Amino acid sequence: MKIYLDCYPCFLRQALEASRIANADEKTQREVLTSVMKVLGNVSQEATPPQIGWLIHKTIREATGNPDPYKEIKQSHNELVLEIEPDLFNFINKSSSPVIDALKLAGTANLIDMGPERQWSDVRDIFEGFMNKKSDFFDYPAFESSLKNSGTLFYIGDNAGEIVLDKILIKLLIQKTDIDITYTVRGKPIINDATMEDARSVGITNIVKVIDTGADFPGVVLKSCSEEFLQYYYEADMILAKGQGNYESLSEEKENIFFLLQAKCPVIADKIGCKVGDLVLKAGRDQP
Amino acid sequence: MKIYLDCYPCFLRQALEASRIANADEKTQREVLTSVMKVLGNVSQEATPPQIGWLIHKTIREATGNPDPYKEIKQSHNELVLEIEPDLFNFINKSSSPVIDALKLAGTANLIDMGPERQWSDVRDIFEGFMNKKSDFFDYPAFESSLKNSGTLFYIGDNAGEIVLDKILIKLLIQKTDIDITYTVRGKPIINDATMEDARSVGITNIVKVIDTGADFPGVVLKSCSEEFLQYYYEADMILAKGQGNYESLSEEKENIFFLLQAKCPVIADKIGCKVGDLVLKAGRDQP
Repeated sequence: MKIYLDCYPCFLRQALEASRIANADEKTQREVLTSVMKVLGNVSQEATPPQIGWLIHKTIREATGNPDPYKEIKQSHNELVLEIEPDLFNFINKSSSPVIDALKLAGTANLIDMGPERQWSDVRDIFEGFMNKKSDFFDYPAFESSLKNSGTLFYIGDNAGEIVLDKILIKLLIQKTDIDITYTVRGKPIINDATMEDARSVGITNIVKVIDTGADFPGVVLKSCSEEFLQYYYEADMILAKGQGNYESLSEEKENIFFLLQAKCPVIADKIGCKVGDLVLKAGRDQP
Repeated sequence: MKIYLDCYPCFLRQALEASRIANADEKTQREVLTSVMKVLGNVSQEATPPQIGWLIHKTIREATGNPDPYKEIKQSHNELVLEIEPDLFNFINKSSSPVIDALKLAGTANLIDMGPERQWSDVRDIFEGFMNKKSDFFDYPAFESSLKNSGTLFYIGDNAGEIVLDKILIKLLIQKTDIDITYTVRGKPIINDATMEDARSVGITNIVKVIDTGADFPGVVLKSCSEEFLQYYYEADMILAKGQGNYESLSEEKENIFFLLQAKCPVIADKIGCKVGDLVLKAGRDQP
């Protein structure tokens, strides 16, 4: 997905917030904004939002000397969601449509994203009333049919905290189907995206094979991914990609893909045809 | 008031919205954003937000050849508020504290501002429930005392549409006090700020002397104002300045000033110590 002009103010907002999270002083914050504006003034028409996100956060890491500014936030989000995991798992187990509800829960958890502008302050509040989430753009029939006809599922994760709900969904799919699942995280820290450290910390490595992208984009930039990642990506019978960053980078690639995300900004909502705040399960790629 | 780093993304958002209101094509929108980012990359520490706002809208006027992109919006806002003027005036006339209510109404009307991000789409909705507006930052006692001790009031207006509520307040002050009022508008079109054309169109010129700033900033940049404006400004016993733009440019100048505004962005709210959405009547200048 290309970069829209509406993304420009949002990149500046994100750069400023991230600089402050990385404890940059005001002079450094200003320098970061100036760098980002130079990048945006010369941005290639081919670039995708995760590539600019990568440049922004690289600039901040270098300016502050902090290799992982979101480390504590990620730990805290993992811990907070692990605390409520038993309740959420019980809820799913008692549900009359557990796979749909686990998908909805994993999609709702995609709100735990420190990139876009946020409407929440405590991650636990995100799950209040998730059952009443609007889901006009939730193509479960296509997902169910693909599940039945697939031997392998490549599950591309997104954020820390959220990964606990991916674990619940994966546990359920293992219980209910014979599908072979591989999960993937980012190769290095970027924003609050989940890395192998988060996968271990929430225990997803105990139930399924976990690999990483081999790159540190907040999405999947195929030309930078490891051979191992690309093998799973191209050979999987079906792919489940979580979140806006994965959608932004893979929306015009393979056909056998499902995007599960919260529409968190007007650009993504317009692109999908939904509203900001909608929970989305979208089957297949967009036309380039 | 200086420009905060938080203003940078907001300037880009405003530039993009204004380019679209001026019917700029996507190429021109991109050029406008690139120009604005160049300006922000070299912004003087002395500059105030209305000076950057001026540069943004000058860039758009020049890029599109449209000298007044907000002309129709201003006309529409004037007409919509004039339609409900009789009801609002009746409400004030029946009030047990008419000056306070007219001030609150004129302050609420400051939401009719096409600069900051907006939460409304129809100006008439702004006046629904205005009597329940939070007003912890509403220093009426100081205003009342100043009114009693002043012979002249210099009233610095802000936006089209809003100007109708300034007229209601002025009518009431003429009824209830002996104070001599002069009203001022912008010297040329800028965003949806009221000009002499708006003052005539809503009939404020029929009840009070109206001058203009002699400049086209969306605020008051004293060194650019006409001699006539400066004479009123320096000689008035008290000043009532409406809106964020006038606050941003005059907040550290004279002591005998009252700012009546809606706090519409986090930067202004932090500066005043209130919350976004609060109605503010603030007595006196800030410490520079």
